[in-house]
Amino acid sequence: MSAANRGVIYMGAGHVEVQPIAFPELALGDRKCQHGVILKVVTTNICGSDQHMVRGRTTAPAGMVLGHEITGEVIECGRDVEFVSVGDIVSVPFNIACGRCRNCKEGQTGICLNVNPARPGAAYGYVDMGGWVGGQSEYVMVPYADFNLLKFPDRDIAMDKIRDLTLLSDIFPTGFHGCATAGVGPGSTVYIAGAGPVGLAAAVSAQLLGAACVIVGDMNPQRLDQAKSFGCETLDLRQDTPMPDMLESILGEREVDSAVDAVGFEARCHGHNHAHEQPATVLNACMDVTRAGGQIGIPGLYVTEDPGAESQEAQHGNLSMRLGQGWAKSHSFHTGQCPVMKYHRQLMQAILFDKVNLADAVNVEIISLDEAPRGYADFDGGVAKKFVIDPHGSVAA
Amino acid sequence: MSAANRGVIYMGAGHVEVQPIAFPELALGDRKCQHGVILKVVTTNICGSDQHMVRGRTTAPAGMVLGHEITGEVIECGRDVEFVSVGDIVSVPFNIACGRCRNCKEGQTGICLNVNPARPGAAYGYVDMGGWVGGQSEYVMVPYADFNLLKFPDRDIAMDKIRDLTLLSDIFPTGFHGCATAGVGPGSTVYIAGAGPVGLAAAVSAQLLGAACVIVGDMNPQRLDQAKSFGCETLDLRQDTPMPDMLESILGEREVDSAVDAVGFEARCHGHNHAHEQPATVLNACMDVTRAGGQIGIPGLYVTEDPGAESQEAQHGNLSMRLGQGWAKSHSFHTGQCPVMKYHRQLMQAILFDKVNLADAVNVEIISLDEAPRGYADFDGGVAKKFVIDPHGSVAA
Amino acid sequence: MSAANRGVIYMGAGHVEVQPIAFPELALGDRKCQHGVILKVVTTNICGSDQHMVRGRTTAPAGMVLGHEITGEVIECGRDVEFVSVGDIVSVPFNIACGRCRNCKEGQTGICLNVNPARPGAAYGYVDMGGWVGGQSEYVMVPYADFNLLKFPDRDIAMDKIRDLTLLSDIFPTGFHGCATAGVGPGSTVYIAGAGPVGLAAAVSAQLLGAACVIVGDMNPQRLDQAKSFGCETLDLRQDTPMPDMLESILGEREVDSAVDAVGFEARCHGHNHAHEQPATVLNACMDVTRAGGQIGIPGLYVTEDPGAESQEAQHGNLSMRLGQGWAKSHSFHTGQCPVMKYHRQLMQAILFDKVNLADAVNVEIISLDEAPRGYADFDGGVAKKFVIDPHGSVAA
Amino acid sequence: MSAANRGVIYMGAGHVEVQPIAFPELALGDRKCQHGVILKVVTTNICGSDQHMVRGRTTAPAGMVLGHEITGEVIECGRDVEFVSVGDIVSVPFNIACGRCRNCKEGQTGICLNVNPARPGAAYGYVDMGGWVGGQSEYVMVPYADFNLLKFPDRDIAMDKIRDLTLLSDIFPTGFHGCATAGVGPGSTVYIAGAGPVGLAAAVSAQLLGAACVIVGDMNPQRLDQAKSFGCETLDLRQDTPMPDMLESILGEREVDSAVDAVGFEARCHGHNHAHEQPATVLNACMDVTRAGGQIGIPGLYVTEDPGAESQEAQHGNLSMRLGQGWAKSHSFHTGQCPVMKYHRQLMQAILFDKVNLADAVNVEIISLDEAPRGYADFDGGVAKKFVIDPHGSVAA
Repeated sequence: MSAANRGVIYMGAGHVEVQPIAFPELALGDRKCQHGVILKVVTTNICGSDQHMVRGRTTAPAGMVLGHEITGEVIECGRDVEFVSVGDIVSVPFNIACGRCRNCKEGQTGICLNVNPARPGAAYGYVDMGGWVGGQSEYVMVPYADFNLLKFPDRDIAMDKIRDLTLLSDIFPTGFHGCATAGVGPGSTVYIAGAGPVGLAAAVSAQLLGAACVIVGDMNPQRLDQAKSFGCETLDLRQDTPMPDMLESILGEREVDSAVDAVGFEARCHGHNHAHEQPATVLNACMDVTRAGGQIGIPGLYVTEDPGAESQEAQHGNLSMRLGQGWAKSHSFHTGQCPVMKYHRQLMQAILFDKVNLADAVNVEIISLDEAPRGYADFDGGVAKKFVIDPHGSVAA
Repeated sequence: MSAANRGVIYMGAGHVEVQPIAFPELALGDRKCQHGVILKVVTTNICGSDQHMVRGRTTAPAGMVLGHEITGEVIECGRDVEFVSVGDIVSVPFNIACGRCRNCKEGQTGICLNVNPARPGAAYGYVDMGGWVGGQSEYVMVPYADFNLLKFPDRDIAMDKIRDLTLLSDIFPTGFHGCATAGVGPGSTVYIAGAGPVGLAAAVSAQLLGAACVIVGDMNPQRLDQAKSFGCETLDLRQDTPMPDMLESILGEREVDSAVDAVGFEARCHGHNHAHEQPATVLNACMDVTRAGGQIGIPGLYVTEDPGAESQEAQHGNLSMRLGQGWAKSHSFHTGQCPVMKYHRQLMQAILFDKVNLADAVNVEIISLDEAPRGYADFDGGVAKKFVIDPHGSVAA
Repeated sequence: MSAANRGVIYMGAGHVEVQPIAFPELALGDRKCQHGVILKVVTTNICGSDQHMVRGRTTAPAGMVLGHEITGEVIECGRDVEFVSVGDIVSVPFNIACGRCRNCKEGQTGICLNVNPARPGAAYGYVDMGGWVGGQSEYVMVPYADFNLLKFPDRDIAMDKIRDLTLLSDIFPTGFHGCATAGVGPGSTVYIAGAGPVGLAAAVSAQLLGAACVIVGDMNPQRLDQAKSFGCETLDLRQDTPMPDMLESILGEREVDSAVDAVGFEARCHGHNHAHEQPATVLNACMDVTRAGGQIGIPGLYVTEDPGAESQEAQHGNLSMRLGQGWAKSHSFHTGQCPVMKYHRQLMQAILFDKVNLADAVNVEIISLDEAPRGYADFDGGVAKKFVIDPHGSVAA
Repeated sequence: MSAANRGVIYMGAGHVEVQPIAFPELALGDRKCQHGVILKVVTTNICGSDQHMVRGRTTAPAGMVLGHEITGEVIECGRDVEFVSVGDIVSVPFNIACGRCRNCKEGQTGICLNVNPARPGAAYGYVDMGGWVGGQSEYVMVPYADFNLLKFPDRDIAMDKIRDLTLLSDIFPTGFHGCATAGVGPGSTVYIAGAGPVGLAAAVSAQLLGAACVIVGDMNPQRLDQAKSFGCETLDLRQDTPMPDMLESILGEREVDSAVDAVGFEARCHGHNHAHEQPATVLNACMDVTRAGGQIGIPGLYVTEDPGAESQEAQHGNLSMRLGQGWAKSHSFHTGQCPVMKYHRQLMQAILFDKVNLADAVNVEIISLDEAPRGYADFDGGVAKKFVIDPHGSVAA
């Protein structure tokens, strides 16, 4: 087996490079991982949350291998692996979970208690997430493989649908989780804040859940066009028109049943002031536009420390939330990393039976590993694409 | 206001007629119904459960006005009605509910405690269901109108979509309830027993809920063709092939996630013996084909007394259920009338926003009031249609 | 029937008086309420949320009759009332609900759409809550009586247990709702912020729900003693010890499963700075002490405008919430008025079958109507009591 | 480490013996179990479902080691065990689960897909349950130890409360599951069919869940006395009085909110005919006494084949259920093995914080391993006791 490996390295603010890295072992430092497998990476996607690090908004150390959205082929199994085999094509949930702690047993795999000494929850290639090596690389190690991995039933079909299936590692479940926690169901009207890949995945999820009308808001016209391309209504938030007025012109009503915040802490003001960050804007807007009794799903990331924030309050993670507005409407708010495993099998089925077409919705572009730096740069520039790295050239053109 | 009225009358086993009937009053015998409204009936559908009566399988008395699937225009409001107005086009849930008892407060409007002295639950024009006058007629009275009625937001749009909206009074929510209680969701595989209108409505509901694959079983080839017409897989139960084998050829697996019994107590044997009734056949088949941990929704009607049954056991409502099979699989079973109000608003939204096309799926045919006896006869003969009576000729061709 | 009536009037900041008021009519201004009843008030309680008004923290107009916690005897029924009779002893949910709108049908009676032109939700005797006359009086009108009222099954037993049953109109369901939305169940560890009557009701509710350990925090030693009296652990928040340390000494763990904010927007700093208001303190503390995956119930009131707040931010309802802390722990947050009707029947059963003793837990003191001003003053002074007004002297000593 | 071991052996219908058996290995035949541990058994209980085998009502082969209710001390860990240590005192769920399959991930550990080649679900020492060696012995092997085991936090406290904690392996969760699936909550009225240990555990669970009134029915007066001893109401089913009449004299109502079938397929007729088996009696009675809208929990075992049944129908597992009765009441039915892991941690907390006293409720009697045959005989004779085997004499008198 080859001992060579290459990966995308975070070199410092605004700078990533593809470099040789160590071939993965069934271990994390001193911790043995005989429950793990080595994957030959089939596809690995660039995620909006990678951008927080690359923009220098976190304490991520230079030299870190990036990448937590991984699909691969099993090439080696640890001795304790029973139900995964060499040759399986598998989706890897971005959250690493042991399958043995209280939270995992309760389905809360996003906050596993055994994979990160610092706090509940871990991920590949992410700051403060347990130190697991990222997967924007040729090969990667996945621990607790029997528990974590989702096997695709048929190898050929998997490769045929890989542009969609690659989205099961993060953004499809994450967008779906936003909708599920927002209470979206048949006949719902839904507002999705943010037309990036997670927002678009939430929009597709809302459609899959039977929503009557899905409305996506953003300030980026290309991304709004992307949302329109699969039947969403859109709100152009560069305008100063109050959002309830915009909703009324679409729905005949000034509120929606459910809202999903797919933006997070780097939110900016709506309207002509949109250059300015205002971290609670989206949350407050969600309260404004959600009907009394509605739920608000918050898959967008909020952080405890944000050294790069404009205001001192925000630097320490304090948001100026207008909670009384939500209280008066009996809102509930649902936060946190998506527990991918709660959803990925069902969403795989929806893909395999042709019920969704998420790759087109988010505008997947397949790139080589060497093109990863360009993908980061384009994505950061706001292009309405989802970049999927194909490190071994295994995806058919 | 006109005092003339005509309706479909049950005359005895196998015999219905259209006859003059009394114009409705805001009362049921001595019981005042100032909370009620008088509707000019826009559409009123023939239901499979009407057939149980017309076939003489119940104790329904001759002379009863039939019909519990009603859509209408409000032409008079009782003095206690506050939120419904003359001119509103409304859908009437087939279950009559007071909105004031414990069950109604808990959303269980199918078993309202205040509308039927004999037992919980009531309906229009149905044996043992409280004596409320049926709505296969020109005019009908609806009690507790503020609570029961679903108003369509726009009159013109309502009339444009009336072929679909008319199905909100019963079969769309009933089929949906079967799926909801069976735990159908995104990515599910689902078996629907029965391709009559409720079965087909369940199949459409499963699709709306995001099911990956919907499989409908019946012994009537026209009905199976109807299921195929909107993308369902089908099982022809006249064959002697074991059902798990048939499933495997479709799914690659021998079981489904969820099953819905849309047949009920008049079930017949599968295979070449299918002339014989065997009331527990469908329930037992659902246990056979549903995976361990699955749920079984039972919108199909089961009765406490069935004088026309073949076996003495069945005449007293005793079914030979193989419950140990379900127990070994940790199944749960969900019975009863659909509480229409739990679903009808959301399903209306799905229709108004063009997310479902149920009328085509169940093959709606609009007929005049005078054609009702022909509709009953054709439907009893197994034609794959849903007959919708248009008593005033108000539906555009 | 007597035409005389007297009630507790808000006269301006810090000042209430008992004065003659109009005898109730089956109307609210021009709105006819033939669906309502007139009650002879048996008991009516002073609530912490009344204090917000009396302290001048709201825009409540002078002259308003106070009181939304009402238990009474029906002395007159409107003509549209069917299921309530003269002589019934009934509990009145503090939230007024029509029973006919979407929210009521979904069990969200705290945000009824038909009883307050200004916004969803209404209450008796409360600012911005629809203008319904308060019930700290001899007689009061209750609209939509069939829907709203909970009848006690036996008059004599009701009067025997009236000290407990009187708490069904608000604080028992409100405390219970806090626990239910916080996910409290058998074996839970629970932190209740605030040992006022709602906090103590939440603590009793947690016990009824089977919690293993209930920990109540406050800065008022009498109220903490009250919590200890029925088996709670307590945190004295005047101390500067970090809360996780205090929890560890009780539980052996630094976090609880669930937290309930029974304080609301008038929260003050913990520790030696506790004279200062800091409206997000309790919310932030709940995030600190609740385990990853936990839920936070927020029955404590948060407002959209708070003219009396110390900071300008808070005056406009903006709280400095550290949401990133909750996000990292996948917390969910559940706000709003308790929908009393969702719980009051079951909690009545718990009282009637002697499963809870809430009156002792909150230290009920029965006072006459004339003593109401003293009750307000004592309660505002922090006495660990729940004042129950007995306007007709009908409660046995 | 000692290589000696002894266990309770099923010798044939009506006959058990204590004999030397092999010391456990980390394997099941050829299947390696390096994920397992060896336990020194602290306590192991005789279960009613063992009796089905010992009575010869199953196809259990002679020579099988019995016992699936196990509490033990870890004395050896397989190399793949990470989170369990030698010296831990642990409760073993009776259902064996891998923690890695779809069902385990969904919390359905009673129907694990990887531990029994014949069908979903496995247990220790039970016919058709995967061939795992039973634990009524001195030592036993537990596979997938990280996933399955519940560690008691403190060894000394565990031994102090061992009479209660030993019930976490089966009957406490099983009884609780019956109540949970029957929808029992604060204020509920509950009927428990059967006053054996599972029925009594269900009754205690209903109390823990806040039920207002728990009513237990049986034909064994000692068992009914046991139920009375902790505050239950009872129905003596040897009487011919209709059950609704008996309920009315207790509750003032003829129905309960929820029912739990803690009897299963060996049910006998009520009233003076109670010598006769009638396998659907309890199910039909539960439908009769449960209110419309109620749920029925069925922890009592129903089988697919019952060679010892009186009727031919019952021999093939066909029960004469009056499902129409349940359908008319919109009942739901919840079957299957309890997934112990869903509940055992929380119930442990309830024990450790002194919220329940189940050992007294079920009348635990500690016996030595050599006394096991006497325990089986006495239990089969109907004594109102729960026998707990203490194979090493480690439980203080």
